[in-house]
Amino acid sequence: MPAERTREHTVPVAAARRRRLRADHARLLADLLRHQVRTGGFPGGVLPLEDAIGSDYRVSRNTVRQALDLLRAEGLVERQPGVGTVVAGERYPHRLDRLQGLAETLREHGRVTNEVRTVGPVPAPGPVARRLRIAEHTDVLYIERRRLLNGLPLSLDLTYVPMDIGTGLLGCDLENTDVFRLLETLTGQPLGTAEITLEAVNADAHSAAVLETPHGSAVLMLERLTHLRDGRPVDLEFIRFRGDRISMSGLLHRAG
Amino acid sequence: MPAERTREHTVPVAAARRRRLRADHARLLADLLRHQVRTGGFPGGVLPLEDAIGSDYRVSRNTVRQALDLLRAEGLVERQPGVGTVVAGERYPHRLDRLQGLAETLREHGRVTNEVRTVGPVPAPGPVARRLRIAEHTDVLYIERRRLLNGLPLSLDLTYVPMDIGTGLLGCDLENTDVFRLLETLTGQPLGTAEITLEAVNADAHSAAVLETPHGSAVLMLERLTHLRDGRPVDLEFIRFRGDRISMSGLLHRAG
Repeated sequence: MPAERTREHTVPVAAARRRRLRADHARLLADLLRHQVRTGGFPGGVLPLEDAIGSDYRVSRNTVRQALDLLRAEGLVERQPGVGTVVAGERYPHRLDRLQGLAETLREHGRVTNEVRTVGPVPAPGPVARRLRIAEHTDVLYIERRRLLNGLPLSLDLTYVPMDIGTGLLGCDLENTDVFRLLETLTGQPLGTAEITLEAVNADAHSAAVLETPHGSAVLMLERLTHLRDGRPVDLEFIRFRGDRISMSGLLHRAG
Repeated sequence: MPAERTREHTVPVAAARRRRLRADHARLLADLLRHQVRTGGFPGGVLPLEDAIGSDYRVSRNTVRQALDLLRAEGLVERQPGVGTVVAGERYPHRLDRLQGLAETLREHGRVTNEVRTVGPVPAPGPVARRLRIAEHTDVLYIERRRLLNGLPLSLDLTYVPMDIGTGLLGCDLENTDVFRLLETLTGQPLGTAEITLEAVNADAHSAAVLETPHGSAVLMLERLTHLRDGRPVDLEFIRFRGDRISMSGLLHRAG
């Protein structure tokens, strides 16, 4: 663990400095363990004993405890009496390399089902109309879905689709099929590109209740405008993923 | 706003149903306003009056208030006496299309400075050694930086660099230069690709204090392993971005 050479000391007492040091080391250790948790690096999903982790990472038992507390607070591990610390919540990897629907990207991890909470035409609010390049207050199809993987709530999706395509969606199996696949079937044309924006936000009370997660828990918010291959924007989505159940992974290139 | 056709009713009373409806509409409205806030869609940074928003979006004043409450809770807008609701915190766009350092990607938005909290050699913990393809407990350079844009804390970065390159970094201006640029200068070779993982987590007490944000606030966590063009992994980073100050944007393609 790093020898500390901090250039700022706001609290001059030695005890506070030790606390800060331990907090730093705990975070550092938590980050390393997090990667192992996510990539199945602990056989059987059981973490080594605190002493073993401590000697592996050359940190004190208190630091190990604090690191495990951080991961517990994130819902990644939990303590099981008689067993020790075990991997609790898997984070499912959503790929950022290709434009894929949830069922497509999580295919290896199980079955995605969708609870359709709302579906029907609504007059397009200005910002929706502009992005879908339709006249303001023209009807669009609005779909609100709670999406589950193997029965566990993953995300809450708000979707807007222009009505000429949306009408076709109304007759489709929205509960078991990605909207992406349905759009390609209905238009006879593959999707092209999507502009995405990712943010971390705290779940408001209502979204938290729908996602069955505590109020204020971290949510990965994805805004996505998807175009057909011919360039027409056909699908505007606002997706709230439970932060403890999804990670987004991709490969970035230095050359543009 | 959507006509509701919910297929699940857990609370059978009409009042609760109305509350749920309003909460849904508020979230929907908040999502649309959020995009306008982020893209500078409100001239002068001042939002229209509640009544005007209500008639634009055909929702009740209560729904507008609840939507603005959601955005206030995210730190995106604030109420200013005598002015109304104004855009409060800008979220800076970090591009996901290309591998770029923070100063590079935010060039148009101001000056990035780095407070170096810790820098020095440490024995590489197992998971760091494996990912950087060096022997376990070989020294790596560990750097901990708080990064600021125009003086505002944006992120807390933990960085590991193999020592042969790290030694050179020790003599560089880490406070004013992206590590990416320094790596390219020191190795005489451009960077190639980076594997990234993005997650939303709640800030632990200590990270929150460093980032000057409330304990538990949403943090965008980026783990990134960067390679030189020849394929050698040279930079493993764990970055915590303040959720209210950064959004990640990119373009995804349907074809692989």
